[in-house]
Amino acid sequence: MFDVIAFDADDTLWHNETLYEQTQERLQRLLAPYLSRPWTGQELYAVEMRNLRYFGYGVKGFTLSMIETAIEVTEGRIPGREIGQIIEFAREMLSSPVELLDGVEEVLETLAPSYRLMLITKGDLFDQETKIARSGLAERFAHVEILSDKTSATYQALLTRQRITPQRFLMVGNSMRSDILPVLALGGQAIHIPYHTTWLHEQVASHEAEGHSYTELADIRQLPPWLAEQHAAEQ
Amino acid sequence: MFDVIAFDADDTLWHNETLYEQTQERLQRLLAPYLSRPWTGQELYAVEMRNLRYFGYGVKGFTLSMIETAIEVTEGRIPGREIGQIIEFAREMLSSPVELLDGVEEVLETLAPSYRLMLITKGDLFDQETKIARSGLAERFAHVEILSDKTSATYQALLTRQRITPQRFLMVGNSMRSDILPVLALGGQAIHIPYHTTWLHEQVASHEAEGHSYTELADIRQLPPWLAEQHAAEQ
Repeated sequence: MFDVIAFDADDTLWHNETLYEQTQERLQRLLAPYLSRPWTGQELYAVEMRNLRYFGYGVKGFTLSMIETAIEVTEGRIPGREIGQIIEFAREMLSSPVELLDGVEEVLETLAPSYRLMLITKGDLFDQETKIARSGLAERFAHVEILSDKTSATYQALLTRQRITPQRFLMVGNSMRSDILPVLALGGQAIHIPYHTTWLHEQVASHEAEGHSYTELADIRQLPPWLAEQHAAEQ
Repeated sequence: MFDVIAFDADDTLWHNETLYEQTQERLQRLLAPYLSRPWTGQELYAVEMRNLRYFGYGVKGFTLSMIETAIEVTEGRIPGREIGQIIEFAREMLSSPVELLDGVEEVLETLAPSYRLMLITKGDLFDQETKIARSGLAERFAHVEILSDKTSATYQALLTRQRITPQRFLMVGNSMRSDILPVLALGGQAIHIPYHTTWLHEQVASHEAEGHSYTELADIRQLPPWLAEQHAAEQ
């Protein structure tokens, strides 16, 4: 039924968004003394979106946006020493341990004999490479691909390069926007496994998801039984 | 003689280091009012080297290092507004036009019918992708590869993935450290075309280059006649 099963990495194989949320909370605490009322964090998202076309995804762009936000919301009152702290947040994010989601290792081990497994992630090349290395999972995948963005065009180019038929390609990930919709648009199949929290930018309105045929699972450990069922139904 | 000719991009196909140098000069002018004596820029390199294992290569890491250096050398006296200026430098670097070196387009056109041409660059994925797009050269290459670093190990992995025999692989670039020595170590061949200025980190001591067999050309336009000579000598 499928030749290739590809997995997203951040928030599909390992925890990631929580690290961004914790860092944003640290930024809020750092800025509190310079603000007359508590900061909600809203401006950061606006700055990130404004900077996306210059910086792309990943920790370094996020950090530059945090610094810019800190200057904006404090109207320049934030001292250099505190901005140095924000750069230290980035170094801590970039060297923090990679925590796998429950069940990931067993699932990859179960599927490896029957499918060609791929990892497809987006973001900063250097950051993603070091995370893959720290995850200990690199050897589990026949191919690892780091994209600057996940769109139908970038998936199409990847499938062509790897000579994969879309109809025999299954993508597994937590983001409707990056992992599910662009793959369905190419005639591929997709499994959505929501993470407990989703970055606003990766969320899609429910009407955008409507009318598309994909499967939602609550946990990656449900993937092997789901595949076995598909296989049985096909016989 | 060669199946594949691969080109480095920054300072081989288009100007790059000059943009970093101009930005560093802008930083020096920005900091001057906060310093009792002129700043030589030396500390920036030390901060960049310290941050390399966290941030990797590219404009965003360079910018975080510029901000950190600005805070350090002014002992935190630099105001937020000026730090915002440094982030603006980054946006300008990331959106500045890509200026091709003289002769690049003709050379690629001359070689395209006889060789499989590749582009192999290192640095930030998003930044390099947008530069390749802005250069207008993407269509000239059968394959484009963006690496986080250029070492014998990363070249070896690439040659294996692309099923290229090292002995039939020629790399062309301006950096002894990134383009020449790691390729020679694998049994490949290399052409060094120095750019008028080289980032300290990419320089190698002359004894490291000694004993290695590679060709140095002054200008990329000398590449097609050099290849023709090799071909004639082989007959």
